[in-house]
Amino acid sequence: MLNEVVISRAIIKKFMDELLEFVEVDVAIAGAGPAGLEAAYFLAKKKVKVAVFERKLSVGGGMWGGGMMFNKIVIQEEGKRILDEIGIRMEKYQEGYYTADSVEAVTGLSFRALQAGAKVFNLMDIEDVIIREDKLSGFVLNWSAVNIAKLHIDPLSINCKIAVDATGHTSEIAKVVQRKSGAKLCTPTGAIIGEKPMWAEVGERIIVENTKEIYPNLYVTGMAANAVFGGPRMGPIFGGMLLSGEKVAKMILEKL
Amino acid sequence: MLNEVVISRAIIKKFMDELLEFVEVDVAIAGAGPAGLEAAYFLAKKKVKVAVFERKLSVGGGMWGGGMMFNKIVIQEEGKRILDEIGIRMEKYQEGYYTADSVEAVTGLSFRALQAGAKVFNLMDIEDVIIREDKLSGFVLNWSAVNIAKLHIDPLSINCKIAVDATGHTSEIAKVVQRKSGAKLCTPTGAIIGEKPMWAEVGERIIVENTKEIYPNLYVTGMAANAVFGGPRMGPIFGGMLLSGEKVAKMILEKL
Amino acid sequence: MLNEVVISRAIIKKFMDELLEFVEVDVAIAGAGPAGLEAAYFLAKKKVKVAVFERKLSVGGGMWGGGMMFNKIVIQEEGKRILDEIGIRMEKYQEGYYTADSVEAVTGLSFRALQAGAKVFNLMDIEDVIIREDKLSGFVLNWSAVNIAKLHIDPLSINCKIAVDATGHTSEIAKVVQRKSGAKLCTPTGAIIGEKPMWAEVGERIIVENTKEIYPNLYVTGMAANAVFGGPRMGPIFGGMLLSGEKVAKMILEKL
Amino acid sequence: MLNEVVISRAIIKKFMDELLEFVEVDVAIAGAGPAGLEAAYFLAKKKVKVAVFERKLSVGGGMWGGGMMFNKIVIQEEGKRILDEIGIRMEKYQEGYYTADSVEAVTGLSFRALQAGAKVFNLMDIEDVIIREDKLSGFVLNWSAVNIAKLHIDPLSINCKIAVDATGHTSEIAKVVQRKSGAKLCTPTGAIIGEKPMWAEVGERIIVENTKEIYPNLYVTGMAANAVFGGPRMGPIFGGMLLSGEKVAKMILEKL
Amino acid sequence: MLNEVVISRAIIKKFMDELLEFVEVDVAIAGAGPAGLEAAYFLAKKKVKVAVFERKLSVGGGMWGGGMMFNKIVIQEEGKRILDEIGIRMEKYQEGYYTADSVEAVTGLSFRALQAGAKVFNLMDIEDVIIREDKLSGFVLNWSAVNIAKLHIDPLSINCKIAVDATGHTSEIAKVVQRKSGAKLCTPTGAIIGEKPMWAEVGERIIVENTKEIYPNLYVTGMAANAVFGGPRMGPIFGGMLLSGEKVAKMILEKL
Amino acid sequence: MLNEVVISRAIIKKFMDELLEFVEVDVAIAGAGPAGLEAAYFLAKKKVKVAVFERKLSVGGGMWGGGMMFNKIVIQEEGKRILDEIGIRMEKYQEGYYTADSVEAVTGLSFRALQAGAKVFNLMDIEDVIIREDKLSGFVLNWSAVNIAKLHIDPLSINCKIAVDATGHTSEIAKVVQRKSGAKLCTPTGAIIGEKPMWAEVGERIIVENTKEIYPNLYVTGMAANAVFGGPRMGPIFGGMLLSGEKVAKMILEKL
Amino acid sequence: MLNEVVISRAIIKKFMDELLEFVEVDVAIAGAGPAGLEAAYFLAKKKVKVAVFERKLSVGGGMWGGGMMFNKIVIQEEGKRILDEIGIRMEKYQEGYYTADSVEAVTGLSFRALQAGAKVFNLMDIEDVIIREDKLSGFVLNWSAVNIAKLHIDPLSINCKIAVDATGHTSEIAKVVQRKSGAKLCTPTGAIIGEKPMWAEVGERIIVENTKEIYPNLYVTGMAANAVFGGPRMGPIFGGMLLSGEKVAKMILEKL
Amino acid sequence: MLNEVVISRAIIKKFMDELLEFVEVDVAIAGAGPAGLEAAYFLAKKKVKVAVFERKLSVGGGMWGGGMMFNKIVIQEEGKRILDEIGIRMEKYQEGYYTADSVEAVTGLSFRALQAGAKVFNLMDIEDVIIREDKLSGFVLNWSAVNIAKLHIDPLSINCKIAVDATGHTSEIAKVVQRKSGAKLCTPTGAIIGEKPMWAEVGERIIVENTKEIYPNLYVTGMAANAVFGGPRMGPIFGGMLLSGEKVAKMILEKL
Repeated sequence: MLNEVVISRAIIKKFMDELLEFVEVDVAIAGAGPAGLEAAYFLAKKKVKVAVFERKLSVGGGMWGGGMMFNKIVIQEEGKRILDEIGIRMEKYQEGYYTADSVEAVTGLSFRALQAGAKVFNLMDIEDVIIREDKLSGFVLNWSAVNIAKLHIDPLSINCKIAVDATGHTSEIAKVVQRKSGAKLCTPTGAIIGEKPMWAEVGERIIVENTKEIYPNLYVTGMAANAVFGGPRMGPIFGGMLLSGEKVAKMILEKL
Repeated sequence: MLNEVVISRAIIKKFMDELLEFVEVDVAIAGAGPAGLEAAYFLAKKKVKVAVFERKLSVGGGMWGGGMMFNKIVIQEEGKRILDEIGIRMEKYQEGYYTADSVEAVTGLSFRALQAGAKVFNLMDIEDVIIREDKLSGFVLNWSAVNIAKLHIDPLSINCKIAVDATGHTSEIAKVVQRKSGAKLCTPTGAIIGEKPMWAEVGERIIVENTKEIYPNLYVTGMAANAVFGGPRMGPIFGGMLLSGEKVAKMILEKL
Repeated sequence: MLNEVVISRAIIKKFMDELLEFVEVDVAIAGAGPAGLEAAYFLAKKKVKVAVFERKLSVGGGMWGGGMMFNKIVIQEEGKRILDEIGIRMEKYQEGYYTADSVEAVTGLSFRALQAGAKVFNLMDIEDVIIREDKLSGFVLNWSAVNIAKLHIDPLSINCKIAVDATGHTSEIAKVVQRKSGAKLCTPTGAIIGEKPMWAEVGERIIVENTKEIYPNLYVTGMAANAVFGGPRMGPIFGGMLLSGEKVAKMILEKL
Repeated sequence: MLNEVVISRAIIKKFMDELLEFVEVDVAIAGAGPAGLEAAYFLAKKKVKVAVFERKLSVGGGMWGGGMMFNKIVIQEEGKRILDEIGIRMEKYQEGYYTADSVEAVTGLSFRALQAGAKVFNLMDIEDVIIREDKLSGFVLNWSAVNIAKLHIDPLSINCKIAVDATGHTSEIAKVVQRKSGAKLCTPTGAIIGEKPMWAEVGERIIVENTKEIYPNLYVTGMAANAVFGGPRMGPIFGGMLLSGEKVAKMILEKL
Repeated sequence: MLNEVVISRAIIKKFMDELLEFVEVDVAIAGAGPAGLEAAYFLAKKKVKVAVFERKLSVGGGMWGGGMMFNKIVIQEEGKRILDEIGIRMEKYQEGYYTADSVEAVTGLSFRALQAGAKVFNLMDIEDVIIREDKLSGFVLNWSAVNIAKLHIDPLSINCKIAVDATGHTSEIAKVVQRKSGAKLCTPTGAIIGEKPMWAEVGERIIVENTKEIYPNLYVTGMAANAVFGGPRMGPIFGGMLLSGEKVAKMILEKL
Repeated sequence: MLNEVVISRAIIKKFMDELLEFVEVDVAIAGAGPAGLEAAYFLAKKKVKVAVFERKLSVGGGMWGGGMMFNKIVIQEEGKRILDEIGIRMEKYQEGYYTADSVEAVTGLSFRALQAGAKVFNLMDIEDVIIREDKLSGFVLNWSAVNIAKLHIDPLSINCKIAVDATGHTSEIAKVVQRKSGAKLCTPTGAIIGEKPMWAEVGERIIVENTKEIYPNLYVTGMAANAVFGGPRMGPIFGGMLLSGEKVAKMILEKL
Repeated sequence: MLNEVVISRAIIKKFMDELLEFVEVDVAIAGAGPAGLEAAYFLAKKKVKVAVFERKLSVGGGMWGGGMMFNKIVIQEEGKRILDEIGIRMEKYQEGYYTADSVEAVTGLSFRALQAGAKVFNLMDIEDVIIREDKLSGFVLNWSAVNIAKLHIDPLSINCKIAVDATGHTSEIAKVVQRKSGAKLCTPTGAIIGEKPMWAEVGERIIVENTKEIYPNLYVTGMAANAVFGGPRMGPIFGGMLLSGEKVAKMILEKL
Repeated sequence: MLNEVVISRAIIKKFMDELLEFVEVDVAIAGAGPAGLEAAYFLAKKKVKVAVFERKLSVGGGMWGGGMMFNKIVIQEEGKRILDEIGIRMEKYQEGYYTADSVEAVTGLSFRALQAGAKVFNLMDIEDVIIREDKLSGFVLNWSAVNIAKLHIDPLSINCKIAVDATGHTSEIAKVVQRKSGAKLCTPTGAIIGEKPMWAEVGERIIVENTKEIYPNLYVTGMAANAVFGGPRMGPIFGGMLLSGEKVAKMILEKL
């Protein structure tokens, strides 16, 4: 016989135990878009304790809608390997161009990351960062519903050894660090350079190059990497994003 | 070398071919929540041509947020079999109560359904239905962005042999049929009865009973079934929903 | 040395333990206005396990603003005793009319209730009720921020032996019971009658009379009592409200 | 016998074929106001493959409402020739001033442009530009409904040999190029100068002078030309705008 | 030399003379969608004094966006004759189905109607009707901007011999007459019956049958006719609408 | 017998004749607050052709609400003479301080100005200015409802010999001139200095000093004068404002 | 020397004395439109203690904007006498039709009413009524800003011997009495009948007939009278409204 | 017998007398958060005439919601003494960390402050400051409802010997002084430095250090102190805030 109170207790207890457990993690990733999820997937496979914080109810960011709501995405040759590993079906459009279903891609990627052991906390905003001895050491969190509802409520904090900004072209964590710490970021100008006009070819290549540590213990990946280093905007192509997520995970593994 | 125009062409072409293909389907499902996805999964496994139409950018409905944003869900004993088949990890809370991660559950279910061959069209509203010879024979679709933006733009239509209302407690397809056809629905009152107060135990049991054909060629499943037949509201428990999705798929298979 | 992670853990742990504890209570009160707080105060003094659920960030309802934002309230002779016990300062305006500072009154009342042992859960909406064997046996809760942000997220539930509708003139719990249960309420018409025009004198007297059990295990108090039984609206006078809160507490004590 | 599915197929097929065809054009015009439409009309007459992208549901921009909603427009002597060719009726108000019905003018101009072979894509925003080898070579498009609905969805791109900014006083394409390319525009200051106070006489004359190539392969016309070069604002007079549209078309013809 | 004050005077004078002239018309049409424009075109060709009042800045209603923003429309065999007369280009999709560009169709139709002598007043709401001796004899107008801005400003009135409700499926004039006059409309039920589910075939045929006088001197045409008489909804097909507009014009010509 | 069409004609005709007449005025005043109305009153008494343009439905600006909605205003000794002339009743509060009813003051002042011959055009925004030979020579007008409704509609223009900025602390005309002309204003800094903190005593004195010509043919009066010259903010006291309005009128009279 | 604190004290003191004084009045009028102001003017001339409560910042209701923002109004022959007494200038348009400036009319009428001794409380909503022994005996007031800001704040009350509903076509006081008292109103149906379509001639005549006591001690005047008794809507003509205001004042004078 | 008019009079009279009394105070505190309330409590205990102005309906600021809506707060060792004095119950979490109920803390603190003699004016915005001889000498107030409702209404002023900015991290009073006076603040940079990233340990210590006079007669306390001096953000810990409130009170006592 089902009992509402037992259901409530089960959910409160399990969530809270997990929340208490993830108050200290190895890697904290801001944003559950393709790059963030791929990084989480790779790290979790290697038994790293990793939490992804996502503002929205659902994960996946801009991947769901394909291009102009036509829910297909394009993957170039180099990125195909990653989707193959996850098991996403692809069709060849012409030499070097594969298409996949955007909904299949986003749900598959997320499912694999979670099953590998990553934890996603959805519905949470990152309001601020924690910096100790000029190193990023944590995120300051709140329910995004609190901010949507314009309520005045204090946040809570979590600690991490490494933080990843996978928030897309807004590069929100990099912005907070730049505004609040006053320190220079590890970019040619010492500051966030900003996204350039669309150029798929260059964007796909350079997004992997731009995947770097931009402040002690803070890495950028995905469109946030291009935004921080002045790389170009890209369309509904996701190979470079996934390669960037993979690269950031590998860099972190070496450092940890 | 990547080319934006090729990317655009690839996406337009693939989407359009698929859209033209799915203008006529065996089964059209309204709503990509847990019951709709499970039904799509089951039908697609049996090689039925099935399309799911979802208003939002993402699938999964109310399943992402667990209970009160604590992102865990509860599954009772009977429902465990379905999540086991999909491969969702569960933990036993106490006898008869299992918990799962809500994000893992929703992405896993969706991923399996798509890989089995179901097609999800996200970002689409169902504005109206097509009725021929007193049978439901199609959906009238529009981009949900058109309605959010309050634009005055005509819809397009698709045909189906069977339609499923998996829109949750709003039971939107049942409402449209009731309002527009003037016909009686196959319920004790001939009309939509409406959701009753929360009662997890009864709700879980009766949701499967309420999974029925309510108008020629229109079935209800999930919370829409409880809403149409006056079943109780349920909390963040999903066993009954998945069983309802499975049942509706079996009923449709027999009829096709 | 202060540590953010310890602060986070302390708050999560203490809140969750309390939430788990209050998933089953003796008395659940909807609304932390004057009548609800007075009832909670009286019951808690008698060692009853009582939780008050309040939608807003702050308690106190309409009491903060006095009349037309002039932050004073009026207490008539009979109500003076209750404020005296709490320790609110009053000034005599003329025979039978005392004024008090509205901010002092609302904070004093709330402070005393909490110190007596009542628990207030602010920021929570009551979305639905639980009815078993034609008796009210629980509330279905969600964060009010979830509803303000229009997020689709499932609620959780709590059980209680007795429930109190202290939601003011909207009498929200009575409305949910009336709409969802289909049962008759214990009023002359069997339904919610609705508030009548302002009449301070009658309102103050009759609000205590209207403080009753309106459905098995559901009591109304304060302006909800007048709204349910067709009593008149009242102005910034609070004696009758407090007496109604006291009365409902006494009735519950007898029944428990 | 009419069939909804055939109607859907007809529309999807015709639109998509056209969209695939216009993914590469000779001339892409941003904005279907009077200058953009006149340029499209002139180019299409010369068999140039031209597409106009318009954010709104309807074409015509500020021309529909005349002055202060009094739906008449004024044409000076020089502009009369163009409206005569299109067949718009005009009345002489006094020497050098003709009035026309604003609704007739906008619909006539658009109708002629389309019949001459121009294609208008309404409901599309230009989110970004494509720059290759320091030349403008394409537009990055999205449904404007996507942006109104604040959905996070990727755009698609089209290629063009020549682009025209006919977006009016906001000169949006010029702004994107200035912000994103970091390059200097071909203006006295190297940047967008901004609209000056209203001066009909000067505005009408100078708008034609300001109709220029401001960045390799990007031309400005209409109010965008005045805004970029610091020309004055103009009222409900449209001769200069149409002459500017004609001039830009002639310049492009020479270059192609 | 252009002078702002002369421009202002020209526009004010021409508009006002026209407004004063059209304060009394033969036929007043509410709504500048396809049916209203076709009716205006036909009547104006016959030298009837006709004014069309349109709430929006632009004419054309739902015709601009094709189906689901794919800007193509379908015309069946019977409707082809009307677009041929106007000069809209059509392509045959299959037997009995022609496609046209939606932007070309709407601007062409409007342009022809205006050139034939119809007057369109855009930006005006019809707030009320004038009824004398149980006959509709005028419209009560206001700027729609006044209503959008929620300003409290009185309307003005115009007189007509015949009025046409071409407001689409909302059938606003019929609604005002029904609500305000208390009289029965000339429908089977004496009231507005409301739109039925989509059925292109039946809708196209019956919309012409439903084109009738529903109250002395008030005719319905286009989707308003189907809405008033319970005809089905239709998609992006416009043959029946245009035939309905033509029919209402012929009926009015006989009556005048 | 009253006839709606005659009423419509009467209003259209009278308004349009007046609008055509006031397309050229001696003095155009932006803003119908106390300073603008007093200036209009004084000038009209001297037979100057003066028009006041007011954005809102009603005149009077911030004068209606007294202080904090307590609808009384204070007049100091020097300002009393002006209200006496208009016939506003005042009560002495203490030496040098008189109170008046704010509603009486605003309606009396406006009534006198209109009866003296000033014309108020309410509901009109000033979107831009006309500058010829480095002199302000006109206003560019639109219905404010057009802007509230965010409609894209062109403005009309009026000419004047002298313009007055009486728009209050936003000093909107001064801002437009500064932004658009690029010229220096006749202030110590050459630019708008901005309002300083409240100082009633200084404000009342200096507002009259600040009443000046700030650009050829453009005067500031009332709070706009203090905002432009860095004078202090003032409370619900209106003597200085009225004296400023009187002074600007006298200066203009000398210049005309 | 001016002192802010003295200014604050003066305004607080004067307003409060007046508010305390007007807590009990002979006549309380809801709505400061033309009918309410005329009634207040007439009664105040006769030394009756009268207060007008107006929701908006400014008085005058729909009179400011003339017809369609053309700020002129029409007065028929019978109403001319009243505007003549107030001193509003009128021009003859044709036999029986006079025009006046709408701004002059509204400010003149208000100014005269206040000077005659009426008190206007602007910015106040009437939330409820006070009924004693089946007679209307007071209004329940709140700041309208409180309601716009959706604050939960209690109202205050005032007593009156006679109340007047001059709230226009919404007839808000009549609605509150009907909804809250449950009593029949003195109309043919016992209820509010509602406004009929526009008919200037009948409206002007019948508005005076409809000016009546509709509930003990509650009178209706102006458009509220037509709305309650099913009289027709009227345009920007104000003779009948003023005569209605005069009539209600005379009826009240006889009764007091 | 209760009488509405007596209730109205009692509230108006008591509030207005108090408002007149507090038009001149010793200390005016902006913001009724924890630091402001503690300062008011301490000063009132010492018989200082102190008024707190709070924008919201309720006092307490960000203290109500604990961390992430989990309504518990943390107090470190040093702050425990203050809550002990007020009588707030605390539980030890671990060495140096105590938790308290957030609702109990905020209501207890406010209640004690009011009983000690402080006056809270809730619902009031501080729009501006009064500066005389380069010293802060008063606040310029308005109802916050006026600003929410976007009404144009003048403020009133109060005088004080000392002002306190306790507005939290927005440090609104400091901002007004900086923007309007043009003077340097007593900070290392002469300006507001702005909040730094979260650091509980440093924040708690430094907030007391930052509690200073930043402009003659203007002190900062609580998060406003950290924001002005560039101290770090803090989470749901309140010891330092209360110590800052106590310190500012002591500094003021010495100065008065």
